[in-house]
Amino acid sequence: MTDIKQTKDMLGRGGLCTVRQAQKTLTDHLKNIPIQTEDLPLQEAFDRVLAEAIYSREDLPAHPRSTMDGFAVRAMDTFGASESMPCYLNITGEVLMGQPPEGEVKKGCCYKIPTGGLCPDGADSVVMFEHTVPVDEGMLEVVKGVGTGSNLVQRGEDISEASMALPAGWRLRPQDIGLLAAIGIVSVTVTKKIRVGILSTGDEIIDHTSQPAPGQIRNINTLALCGLVRQADATYVDYGIVSDQKDVFLPAVQQAAAENDIVLFSGGSSVGVRDLGEQVIEELGPPGILVHGVKLKPGKPVIIGLSGDTPIFGLPGHPVSAMVCFDFFIKPAIRILSGLPATDNMASATVSATLSRNINSAAGRLDVIRVKLEKKDLSWEAQPIMGKSGSISTLSRAHGYFFIDEDSQGVCENSIVKVTLFK
Amino acid sequence: MTDIKQTKDMLGRGGLCTVRQAQKTLTDHLKNIPIQTEDLPLQEAFDRVLAEAIYSREDLPAHPRSTMDGFAVRAMDTFGASESMPCYLNITGEVLMGQPPEGEVKKGCCYKIPTGGLCPDGADSVVMFEHTVPVDEGMLEVVKGVGTGSNLVQRGEDISEASMALPAGWRLRPQDIGLLAAIGIVSVTVTKKIRVGILSTGDEIIDHTSQPAPGQIRNINTLALCGLVRQADATYVDYGIVSDQKDVFLPAVQQAAAENDIVLFSGGSSVGVRDLGEQVIEELGPPGILVHGVKLKPGKPVIIGLSGDTPIFGLPGHPVSAMVCFDFFIKPAIRILSGLPATDNMASATVSATLSRNINSAAGRLDVIRVKLEKKDLSWEAQPIMGKSGSISTLSRAHGYFFIDEDSQGVCENSIVKVTLFK
Repeated sequence: MTDIKQTKDMLGRGGLCTVRQAQKTLTDHLKNIPIQTEDLPLQEAFDRVLAEAIYSREDLPAHPRSTMDGFAVRAMDTFGASESMPCYLNITGEVLMGQPPEGEVKKGCCYKIPTGGLCPDGADSVVMFEHTVPVDEGMLEVVKGVGTGSNLVQRGEDISEASMALPAGWRLRPQDIGLLAAIGIVSVTVTKKIRVGILSTGDEIIDHTSQPAPGQIRNINTLALCGLVRQADATYVDYGIVSDQKDVFLPAVQQAAAENDIVLFSGGSSVGVRDLGEQVIEELGPPGILVHGVKLKPGKPVIIGLSGDTPIFGLPGHPVSAMVCFDFFIKPAIRILSGLPATDNMASATVSATLSRNINSAAGRLDVIRVKLEKKDLSWEAQPIMGKSGSISTLSRAHGYFFIDEDSQGVCENSIVKVTLFK
Repeated sequence: MTDIKQTKDMLGRGGLCTVRQAQKTLTDHLKNIPIQTEDLPLQEAFDRVLAEAIYSREDLPAHPRSTMDGFAVRAMDTFGASESMPCYLNITGEVLMGQPPEGEVKKGCCYKIPTGGLCPDGADSVVMFEHTVPVDEGMLEVVKGVGTGSNLVQRGEDISEASMALPAGWRLRPQDIGLLAAIGIVSVTVTKKIRVGILSTGDEIIDHTSQPAPGQIRNINTLALCGLVRQADATYVDYGIVSDQKDVFLPAVQQAAAENDIVLFSGGSSVGVRDLGEQVIEELGPPGILVHGVKLKPGKPVIIGLSGDTPIFGLPGHPVSAMVCFDFFIKPAIRILSGLPATDNMASATVSATLSRNINSAAGRLDVIRVKLEKKDLSWEAQPIMGKSGSISTLSRAHGYFFIDEDSQGVCENSIVKVTLFK
């Protein structure tokens, strides 16, 4: 498991930790950070995370309702009715939508009732319209009997008073908002959206709107990271490109840390910028650096630190590496600070695909293999995209990725791999 | 395949079509509708769909760059170098980030180079720092030779001039925005966001902030549908609850159709409201109703129409039915009008799970079975949630759903089902 060669970098550092160790170190620190909350009107709470459980204050539905268009009856009056031996009922009323029914359904009688109509007193079931034949305005033939309770939803059947509608830490999907609307919840206490400050550094980096001179490259990471932050249901503040001179870079990171819940900087895979990143994180204040470097490809040179309650991430300059690190470390950090578990409780949904070629991997390192998916007959083929980690086009051509674990030295052609799709 | 009983509803209508037929009818009409476009700055184009292909106007990278911290060399000078038989090179320069290297690397010499540094003239490869031993300030020992081109990314290797960076109809993910930033694209022509007008109707429906009297229920569908529209990368206009009196409802739908690209109304599964919905769609103008009712459970009573270039959907009042219809018909409509294929080219990612119980299904009908997923040992168990389609809590407890096809009469306990997760 740990037979990866312990090479040292230009700063003489070695001793990388595994992805799991790095994630545990990070999450152990983050779970003690207090979670901030705010109250929102229900209609503004999509994708937000409940800060507290919500209990229903009422039964839903409040009264038995019909689930069909048909006739409200006393079930017993219909027992044994069939095509060959129908029963006959007097139509003595009609349930109107939005109004309580008048009177009651007496023995041998029925009320016309629409789907959703409130079950009138006396009746205990509904005969579907399709199982009736109208004789005249006042008389109904029933060709199929019903049992008590048929085609009704009972009081409290959807949700009962005092039961928990949704637990704390639940991300509100459209149907959850619908449920809360149904039980009359007008505002909810949710965790605050996490603000992420994003800085880019490196003397070679220029804005993407500029024309690079030889040796310069446009800023790719800031925009890609902004997109990932949005996908993680957080907001971002773009601090642009900051000089990698320490007297400029340190105060810029300090300001970003003061104004945000999380700070990301990227832009240097070169050792000089990495060294600067480590110095800055240490000088921001304790606890300082938690992780420097992980056994992950791409993504090895990530730096993870904490200044007070603010996680600071120094991401590799290579865009593919930066994006992989985002998924492994920053997304869990956003989730935890948002009141969610570090990873989705559900298995990530994946697509099973047949690998198109052998892929080697160094043992002791987690490899993230980008793939293009192509339909072959009825199944999917995963075609690895093997470009360098500096190559943003490889990521743009990829539909998703799969992992080769630390204890594996590779995966053979025609193996089935589980591909996580990019959002 | 078509042995479902052809029952008629209270309006005497029968002849439901299959989901596939309904989708084909809808998409055949929609694909002729012109797609509207707009220009956006790159940083505002996340999740938007390219209206036209984008070609790179330059090579990326523009010059060969190092992918490692190390030393730029002439590969030939290092041939055969090993731990036991190292070679020695004079360090005659250094590549600085963001600057073109000065001079050239002569035979027997090397330049120090950082990751991302521009390869100096004369050099054709980079020796990794880890494969060198510094002798003194001016002399380097190389303990592993390199081949020509090693540890360099070549000019145009990421993307070459005049090649297509991204095709038309491509939804811009974070890495795609990164790629466009890399090649200096500052604005993009994308399809306009689709505006969806949402109305709720039915005399029994009241706002979710109100206290229902007997027979009334709170408006669930509007908020749930707003959430689904957001998830589909469209925007919504909420027209609230509109009376189901035709002289009020018709002008409200007309206004919504004039102000939006798509109109949804919901709120009546009762035959009266459904009848009103059909009348209104017909009166909005041709082509009128395309589909009324599909062999789908839940979701059977959906009405699909078109008024000019504006699709109009009458959704069942039951929230579960309304949401299932959204996925089958409205999401594809939003995609097509946004310039995307009707369904994702990729297989939807799914979770394989073991079914916890037998589920019966009527042949000739597509059944959508909501499930809760629970981890059992190392695999997932899918537990069907069998509540009535009016029950919003069933949808809130569900993690996703699977299908039982028209030609199946059910699925046995312990079968493996493919569960599509809710977003």
